[in-house]
Amino acid sequence: MAEQPAIGVVGATGAVGTVTLQLLRDRGFENVRVFASARSAGKVVNGWTVEEATPEALSAGDVDVFLFSVGTGASRELVPHAVSGGAVAIDKSSAFRLDPNYPLVVPEVNGERATGSIIANPNCCTIPLTCVLKPLHDAAGLARVRVSTYQSVSGAGAQRMEQLRAEPVDEHDLRMDWTWDGDETDEESKIRAETQKILELPELPISATTVRVPVLVGHAESVWVEFDDSLSAAQAETILREAPSVQLLDVPTPGDAARTHDVLVGRIRPDRASNGIVLFLACDNLVKGAALNAIQIAELLLSAVTTQ
Amino acid sequence: MAEQPAIGVVGATGAVGTVTLQLLRDRGFENVRVFASARSAGKVVNGWTVEEATPEALSAGDVDVFLFSVGTGASRELVPHAVSGGAVAIDKSSAFRLDPNYPLVVPEVNGERATGSIIANPNCCTIPLTCVLKPLHDAAGLARVRVSTYQSVSGAGAQRMEQLRAEPVDEHDLRMDWTWDGDETDEESKIRAETQKILELPELPISATTVRVPVLVGHAESVWVEFDDSLSAAQAETILREAPSVQLLDVPTPGDAARTHDVLVGRIRPDRASNGIVLFLACDNLVKGAALNAIQIAELLLSAVTTQ
Repeated sequence: MAEQPAIGVVGATGAVGTVTLQLLRDRGFENVRVFASARSAGKVVNGWTVEEATPEALSAGDVDVFLFSVGTGASRELVPHAVSGGAVAIDKSSAFRLDPNYPLVVPEVNGERATGSIIANPNCCTIPLTCVLKPLHDAAGLARVRVSTYQSVSGAGAQRMEQLRAEPVDEHDLRMDWTWDGDETDEESKIRAETQKILELPELPISATTVRVPVLVGHAESVWVEFDDSLSAAQAETILREAPSVQLLDVPTPGDAARTHDVLVGRIRPDRASNGIVLFLACDNLVKGAALNAIQIAELLLSAVTTQ
Repeated sequence: MAEQPAIGVVGATGAVGTVTLQLLRDRGFENVRVFASARSAGKVVNGWTVEEATPEALSAGDVDVFLFSVGTGASRELVPHAVSGGAVAIDKSSAFRLDPNYPLVVPEVNGERATGSIIANPNCCTIPLTCVLKPLHDAAGLARVRVSTYQSVSGAGAQRMEQLRAEPVDEHDLRMDWTWDGDETDEESKIRAETQKILELPELPISATTVRVPVLVGHAESVWVEFDDSLSAAQAETILREAPSVQLLDVPTPGDAARTHDVLVGRIRPDRASNGIVLFLACDNLVKGAALNAIQIAELLLSAVTTQ
């Protein structure tokens, strides 16, 4: 890779793609190539002109790291082309996340796994959850985890954000607008299986209930954690105060988390139903929950190359 | 009491009072007296003219059962006057709920406790929760309970509903807009202590996290239950299908629950973190969560008198 590596963004016009381009701009990336469907080709987004994401364009070999923000089907089809041209693909869809051949990476949690030609970026609820669980696991060993989510509509895409804006407030409701995977939503099974893979705890018992709330941006999670060893709420708070990308707040909300880069954690207290703890977290699902995490993986790869 | 008992409604102009009057109308109550502050005296609500809730008016002895939908401070002040006139007071505030001298009643759960001159009506999250927990406890014994709530703004009063209607959708956020009671919100401590009292399980471990969501009407709860004895999700579903005031639905939401009289329960499945179960419930916080439950207590008292 050259000193000014070429970053390719595929799927630049969606909710996550838009945030990706802004973050790349903010972080000083200049050599950025932007790809999307033929319909968007020629448009200028954030100062960059959109090219059509054809197999030929992606495999041309002139991009070092691709960031994919497209659907699972499109990732399955296009990522192999990007890789065939010699690039590394960081993919935000669920296409490769649970494939044992590819790493699933949160830089603060398992950055050392970020190797190979395809690196998967986890689900927007899994990323903040593992940022919180990893330091607690290192301290006392996770025994079991229960999560109820409060997920914003931006997790369902830019179109759903427009729907919420247009919806009369009397129609605001909770939804479970995912597909079903047995008795779980596929979102619940992602949180469970991805967390197990990232923490390398394939047997960790995790029970999740995922719920969409009428909020535009920012996911929250109500979390119960039990440990193998004793860990008090005060000890957990001390550990999380030092944890990378974690910021403590009395009562974190999606509104607090919007546009921030950290996972906000609060309400850390004893679980009155066990010896474990309860906490509440909030995270911008488009930033650390998606675009930022993928860029951090890219930065990790690029710094590893630079420092070799 | 006469065959046409006189029902007094105190606090008739708030969110719960309005629903109370409509439900009394729907259920054929005709001999209704309506009381509120001096400011509302003379207004006609639901066909009834509002009288001022003075100590003299409440203690006059011409009302059989009072339904109080006022704040805790006003209940502490006014309920004794109502009782001094010989009436029974059913109070929806938290003034008497945890006082061991007074019963706290959900008719389907502990209707046999509805005796004495003051009967307390539980918190809007406690009522649906106990409707679900009681039949499960009878079957297998509750060992521990964890709850995350999704509570609508109508629980915070009619004014907060107007605020949400006026709020730009970009400002919609989660809130924990209760007062603090140590490391819990007072809402969390109410759910815990009231559930323990109603189920007569003072040591039952209950851990709750309460959250306000930008929905107008209807509360939802994500619930984990562990048992002393073995109880499968399928067995729990069979039990809840027969439970009074419980209605099964695949994915119940506040929108489904609005204006219904039942507690909607769904997503009953094994807890992957224990031998217990997980479920999701929704309930109209103004109806079964407040006004209807109090009227059902009144009906229970009046039918007991009639059938003596």
